[in-house]
Amino acid sequence: MISYKNTSTEELKEHLASLKAVYKEYQGMDLRLNMARGKPSNDQLDLSMGMMDILSSQDDLTCEDGTDCRNYGVLDGIGEAKQLLGDMMEVPAENIIIYGNSSLNVMYDTVSRSMTHGVMGNTPWCKLDRVKFLCPVPGYDRHFAITEYFGIEMIPIPMTEFGPDMDLVEKYVSEDESIKGIWCVPKYSNPQGYSYSDETVRRFAALEPKAKDFRIYWDNAYTIHHLYDEDRDYILEILEECRKAGHPDMVYKFASTSKISFPGSGIAAIAASHNNLDDIRDQLTIQTIGHDKVNQLRHVRFFGDIDGMNAHMRKHADILRPKFETVLEILERELGGLGIGSWTKPKGGYFISFDSLDGCAKAIVSRCKKAGVVMTGAGATYPYGRDPQDANIRIAPSYPPLADLKLATELFTLCVKIVSIEKILSERGA
Amino acid sequence: MISYKNTSTEELKEHLASLKAVYKEYQGMDLRLNMARGKPSNDQLDLSMGMMDILSSQDDLTCEDGTDCRNYGVLDGIGEAKQLLGDMMEVPAENIIIYGNSSLNVMYDTVSRSMTHGVMGNTPWCKLDRVKFLCPVPGYDRHFAITEYFGIEMIPIPMTEFGPDMDLVEKYVSEDESIKGIWCVPKYSNPQGYSYSDETVRRFAALEPKAKDFRIYWDNAYTIHHLYDEDRDYILEILEECRKAGHPDMVYKFASTSKISFPGSGIAAIAASHNNLDDIRDQLTIQTIGHDKVNQLRHVRFFGDIDGMNAHMRKHADILRPKFETVLEILERELGGLGIGSWTKPKGGYFISFDSLDGCAKAIVSRCKKAGVVMTGAGATYPYGRDPQDANIRIAPSYPPLADLKLATELFTLCVKIVSIEKILSERGA
Repeated sequence: MISYKNTSTEELKEHLASLKAVYKEYQGMDLRLNMARGKPSNDQLDLSMGMMDILSSQDDLTCEDGTDCRNYGVLDGIGEAKQLLGDMMEVPAENIIIYGNSSLNVMYDTVSRSMTHGVMGNTPWCKLDRVKFLCPVPGYDRHFAITEYFGIEMIPIPMTEFGPDMDLVEKYVSEDESIKGIWCVPKYSNPQGYSYSDETVRRFAALEPKAKDFRIYWDNAYTIHHLYDEDRDYILEILEECRKAGHPDMVYKFASTSKISFPGSGIAAIAASHNNLDDIRDQLTIQTIGHDKVNQLRHVRFFGDIDGMNAHMRKHADILRPKFETVLEILERELGGLGIGSWTKPKGGYFISFDSLDGCAKAIVSRCKKAGVVMTGAGATYPYGRDPQDANIRIAPSYPPLADLKLATELFTLCVKIVSIEKILSERGA
Repeated sequence: MISYKNTSTEELKEHLASLKAVYKEYQGMDLRLNMARGKPSNDQLDLSMGMMDILSSQDDLTCEDGTDCRNYGVLDGIGEAKQLLGDMMEVPAENIIIYGNSSLNVMYDTVSRSMTHGVMGNTPWCKLDRVKFLCPVPGYDRHFAITEYFGIEMIPIPMTEFGPDMDLVEKYVSEDESIKGIWCVPKYSNPQGYSYSDETVRRFAALEPKAKDFRIYWDNAYTIHHLYDEDRDYILEILEECRKAGHPDMVYKFASTSKISFPGSGIAAIAASHNNLDDIRDQLTIQTIGHDKVNQLRHVRFFGDIDGMNAHMRKHADILRPKFETVLEILERELGGLGIGSWTKPKGGYFISFDSLDGCAKAIVSRCKKAGVVMTGAGATYPYGRDPQDANIRIAPSYPPLADLKLATELFTLCVKIVSIEKILSERGA
């Protein structure tokens, strides 16, 4: 195809008219499709329904160390759940605390505790004049929402396909004591699906922060969420790398089974050094008597071990893979060579990231919505919801059935074309 | 029996010698009994095992409004869970937010949010020089642990059988702007089992706090936890009373199913005015996408409605009642008339409160421990673990089987006698 920029104004105008006619047809279809959030589809949820039968009224709900999972106690998780999530998170079980149903909640509580009580004996952040976080962009809106909520200043750091711009990260972290953290989704990143290179991970581990209480918030949300059996990303294990680099306490790693078993009914965990875990337990013992051990046991008995969990993830992949491939095919077929957008091609995770011409993202999302297709709000992938280029759009292919997804993606590409032509024409003063 | 104080020194000494001989026998029995915490017994846990079968892999896990409980969403709880816990907490469903597995966690988060973000637009407590809570004593150690953890100054308020000393509460709350809350267990209080009188509840609702952000922390932990069918306590509903008194926003009410279904695997809730709930939801939406809806649905389908829940509570009562009665019988038989202790006779809840002679509680608990019976630590029922009289001991009869409970209580009374005689003799200089 010829790029729109090399197409004559006359031809573009004609093309726009025909595109708008097609758009009208879509509007007449009364679509109600949603590509906004990384929600598993019903098919995926069905995969874990066996979990409902795995514990029965006749069962002994005692765990390996003799604890009755039905009663009070066990602050930081039953041993076998620590083992399972330790294997999933690639750290020893002893470096794990099991939480409730949501890793987002664990991250929130981690920031909240740092605000009120500080990190490992350091000054509580609420007593400081300024606290800042580095935010690789585009990134995850709910991360940014936590730091914004606590009045933490967010500094955007550009992402590359190898991870965040580490020159910039090193400079900020080593020079500014008010930098207390950085949000990372190191594997199949949200929204780009990038995985950090070995060099990036090693440079993270080698950071020499000015602030003693600087922590890397390593949200390993998609650690085993591959789309392909062979062609998958591997990243270095950050706790181990930090330990080797002499900074064992510099990282908190988060994960959950939300997109493995059930969102909202899974189990979440933090992995960190013993010093950090002791610090956390001092607080946790005030906050709760313990999390849901029956649900921990339910997960352990359903998955068995990490092999069982990986086998389960292949079933998720079989459902997700055609959806990602469909979206990518349509994007390539409809937009390839037009010079009006670029997109990522992830091998795992839940998202595809699309970059439009500058200044077009909001208009594209708005046009989609008017025809019944809801996308993640433009700007959501940036701190404070402000994408300075107004270019990034997150595509979440997981939830709609394949037929709906096709329709939605076709409409999306149509909107990209319309908005881009309007933009080009307006730049030409035409 | 003749009171010890009216017994001659000679006789007391003889009696002490024989008591100590019996104590030695107990020590030889290698007992390992625990009356420390309000844990349900295994028999009680068995009552809810049907919950493990109530959802199956063949079931539709859609709730009444069409939400698939297996997926993300629904920040503040599914409608039918709000209805069930609303009925349990005696408030409309619309005044409920359903949380995770622990009401303690809800209380912690409530205090934590007030520290970092303030209450309904008021100054965050972490920005204030002083924040104080009133603490009816004896009370619940985990309440006091939360306020202590956040550096909140705790002011003890004496309990009466009708509730806290309201003259004192009114004085403090109306005069001191730094008083931001009061911990209450209004029904079958922890540890005394007292229930607030109508006058007490009405005086609470009529409080005119100097601080706009003063809140009553109304921990209705034992709202339907009666021991008897007929002879039960009723208390006025505090949200309604506050509303009638023109102070609709002055109270947070907490409860959970921890001692109804499973501790650690139940569901918890807060009840409050719409203004308060809006304030809470503004924070909650940052903290989590939603709590465990499958477990909410599990509870709803298992109990059906409040009648089903009340029927279930009768089964708990049938197990707990003989335990309470056994402890009370032994206390009366062994200690009645001796003038060395007094105790409460609750009609519900999980505890009996025992007051020894001043200065004896720590020694009694320590003596019990040395013979293999663990009681709640003396002092635990007071802020900072300091009981100025060193007199209060919390007895938790729920967990041990009846035979063990008998033994443990007999040993307890033996220890009370020994420590009391030693105290009396030492006062006589004998």
